[in-house]
Amino acid sequence: MPGKVTVLGSGSWGLALSNLLVTDPSSVSIWPPTSEEKRLLTTSRENPAALPGVRLASDVAICDDLTVRGAPLHVILAVPSHAVRAVASRVSLPPEPPSDSTIICAAKGIETDTLKRMSEVLKDVLPAAWSSRIVILSGPSHAEEVARGIPTAIVVASSNVEAAKAAQALLAHERFRVYVSDDVVGVELGGALKNIIAIAAGITDGLGYGDNTKGALLTRGMVEIARLGVAMGARERTFAGLTGIGDLITTCISRHSRNRYVGQELGKGRTLESILGGMTMVAEGVRTTRAARALAEKYQVSMPITVQVNKILFEGQPPEQAMLELMLRDPKTEDGIPLSHLKEPKSP
Amino acid sequence: MPGKVTVLGSGSWGLALSNLLVTDPSSVSIWPPTSEEKRLLTTSRENPAALPGVRLASDVAICDDLTVRGAPLHVILAVPSHAVRAVASRVSLPPEPPSDSTIICAAKGIETDTLKRMSEVLKDVLPAAWSSRIVILSGPSHAEEVARGIPTAIVVASSNVEAAKAAQALLAHERFRVYVSDDVVGVELGGALKNIIAIAAGITDGLGYGDNTKGALLTRGMVEIARLGVAMGARERTFAGLTGIGDLITTCISRHSRNRYVGQELGKGRTLESILGGMTMVAEGVRTTRAARALAEKYQVSMPITVQVNKILFEGQPPEQAMLELMLRDPKTEDGIPLSHLKEPKSP
Repeated sequence: MPGKVTVLGSGSWGLALSNLLVTDPSSVSIWPPTSEEKRLLTTSRENPAALPGVRLASDVAICDDLTVRGAPLHVILAVPSHAVRAVASRVSLPPEPPSDSTIICAAKGIETDTLKRMSEVLKDVLPAAWSSRIVILSGPSHAEEVARGIPTAIVVASSNVEAAKAAQALLAHERFRVYVSDDVVGVELGGALKNIIAIAAGITDGLGYGDNTKGALLTRGMVEIARLGVAMGARERTFAGLTGIGDLITTCISRHSRNRYVGQELGKGRTLESILGGMTMVAEGVRTTRAARALAEKYQVSMPITVQVNKILFEGQPPEQAMLELMLRDPKTEDGIPLSHLKEPKSP
Repeated sequence: MPGKVTVLGSGSWGLALSNLLVTDPSSVSIWPPTSEEKRLLTTSRENPAALPGVRLASDVAICDDLTVRGAPLHVILAVPSHAVRAVASRVSLPPEPPSDSTIICAAKGIETDTLKRMSEVLKDVLPAAWSSRIVILSGPSHAEEVARGIPTAIVVASSNVEAAKAAQALLAHERFRVYVSDDVVGVELGGALKNIIAIAAGITDGLGYGDNTKGALLTRGMVEIARLGVAMGARERTFAGLTGIGDLITTCISRHSRNRYVGQELGKGRTLESILGGMTMVAEGVRTTRAARALAEKYQVSMPITVQVNKILFEGQPPEQAMLELMLRDPKTEDGIPLSHLKEPKSP
C-alpha cells in the first residue's frame, strides 16, 4: 500500500492500528496528543497505562506536526470521541483529497453538547472536499486483542462506498477482517450506544447476577438501540451485525471494557465520582448515556435500559432497584419487546 | 395456581423448575428417569452430578407413576432431547385435556434420525387432542442460575396462544420473567442450533482466541441459524430475541455450558471420544450439529460455521485450520454476511 498514514492518538487503539499498518519507515506516523505520551513513546516506545506490554513498532515515526501530506493520504482519528472536534480542527489537509485518500474515525461516541455523531462533527471541521472521504471504523475489536494478533472482524462505513473500499484495502490483514457498509448512521450508533448497555451489564455483574440476566439484558439492549437507530435513519439489520450485537457482545464479556468496569463498580455500591477518579482511561459510555437519553427524547423513542442507567449514573438511583424494575415490568409477548415496533428496513 | 404439575426428568432443569413451581405438597411431582436418580433424590433430595448444592424442595413429591391427572394438568418434559420421544410415549394422559392444561417441552434439540423438532416429536406420540396444548420453553436460562434466583427472562411458544398463556401464568415468578410467542419453529430452532455455535465458541476459547473473535463468531452464527430458520418457516425477528441471540450469548459466555466445554477441549486438541467419555451430562450440540448439517442440505441453505464444526467433530478436521478458514474467506460487504440474504419476516 503506497501512500502515507497518520494516526492521531497514542492510546490503545492508536498504538494497535499503527503496529497493524506499518510496512516501512515512511508509511505510518503517530501523533501523541500530550507531551507526556510523546515523551513516553520517544523514550520507551510504550504507553503502559493504555496498552501494557506492547511496543510501538520501530518503523512507526512519532510526529508533532499536524500538516499531513501523501498520496493517497490516510488520517486515522484514534482519540476519545469528546476530543475529535478539537483534534480534527488542528489537522492541516491539502484542500483537495488525493484519490483513494481517507479520514478514518475510530472514536465511538456522540458529542454531548450538539448530539452529533462523529461523522457529523468531522464534516463541521474538515475542508468541504474531504466530506466524501470520511469513513467510520467500528465492530468488535478490543485494541488489546488486535495488538496480540487475535482474529478480529470489523466494519468500515461510509456514505461514499469508494472511500470505504479504500479504507478496507488499507486496513485488511490476515487476522483483521474488514467488511464494507454504507449505513453510516447505523454503524456509528451501534458503536457508541453499546457502551450504555456495557455499563448496565457491568452493573448486573457487580450485583452478582449471572449469565441468564446478561443474555436477556444484551438482547433487549440491542433492541432499544435499534429502535433509536431506525428513528434516526439507520437500517435495522445493521444492529444484527458486527457493529451492533457483535460489538455489544465483545464489550459486555470483556475484562478489557472500561464501561463494563464502571458498571461493575456501581453495582458494588461505589459512587461514579470515586470510580472515575481512579481511572486513567476514558469510559465513553458515561457521556454517551446522557446523549442517548436526550436523543431518545428528541426522537420520542422508548429506551428503558438507557433511562435506568442514566438514573443510576446521574440521579442517585440504587442499581438493584433499577435493574429489578427493568426485569419486572408487565409481561407481554416477546414480539412486543424486541424488534417488532420497528419499521421495515429501508432499501440500501 | 390450582391444578397439578408433573416434571419428567430430574436433571438440573427438572430440579430447578420443580423448586420454582412448588407451592404446596400436592402441586408438583417429579419423575426421575433412572432408578439411581430416584434413589439419590429419595435419600438425599439432591442430584449432585446435575445440580450440586441444590436440594429438591420438601413439598415436591417423587413419583414413578406416569399416569398423570389433574385440572388443569401440566406436564413438563425436562429430559435430554433424544429421550423426549421415549419418555413422552410412556405418559398416560386423559384423552381430552382439561382446560388450561399444557405439555411444556424444555428440551432443546433436533431428533437425529427424523430431523424433527421437539414439538413434532410430541405430536407423533401424544393423544391427538393434546397437540394444541404443546408449549416450547426456551431462552437464556441456565438451570444453575434459575435455582439460585438469578433474574431470568424466557419465552413460551405455542401455535395455540391460549396454551402459551396458560404456561406463562404457571411459570411466571418474580425473578423469572416469561414472554409469549407464537413462532414455534423459530423458538425451537434458536434453542437447539445455538448449541452448535456454543461448541464453536468453545473451540475459539481452547485455541486461545479472544473476545473479538467471539463477538464476530456469535454474530455470524446467529445469522446462519436465522437463515435456516426462515427457510423452515420461522420469523427472522425471533432470532434477534431472547430465544435466539439471547440464549446464544448466555450459553457462549457461561462456565455452565456443556457444549462450550466440549468445544474448548476440542480446541485444546483432545478427541471427541475422550471428552465425552469424561462427562456425566449430555452435550446436546454434538448430536444437533449432525442434524443441522442435514437440514442445511435439505433446505439448501449456507451454514459455514455448522459445516466446520461438523468437520471438527466427525471428520478429524484440525480446529485451528477450520476456524481460520471461517475468518479468512474473501472480504465482502457485511450486508452480504448477516441478514440480508433472508426473506422479509412473515406476518404473524
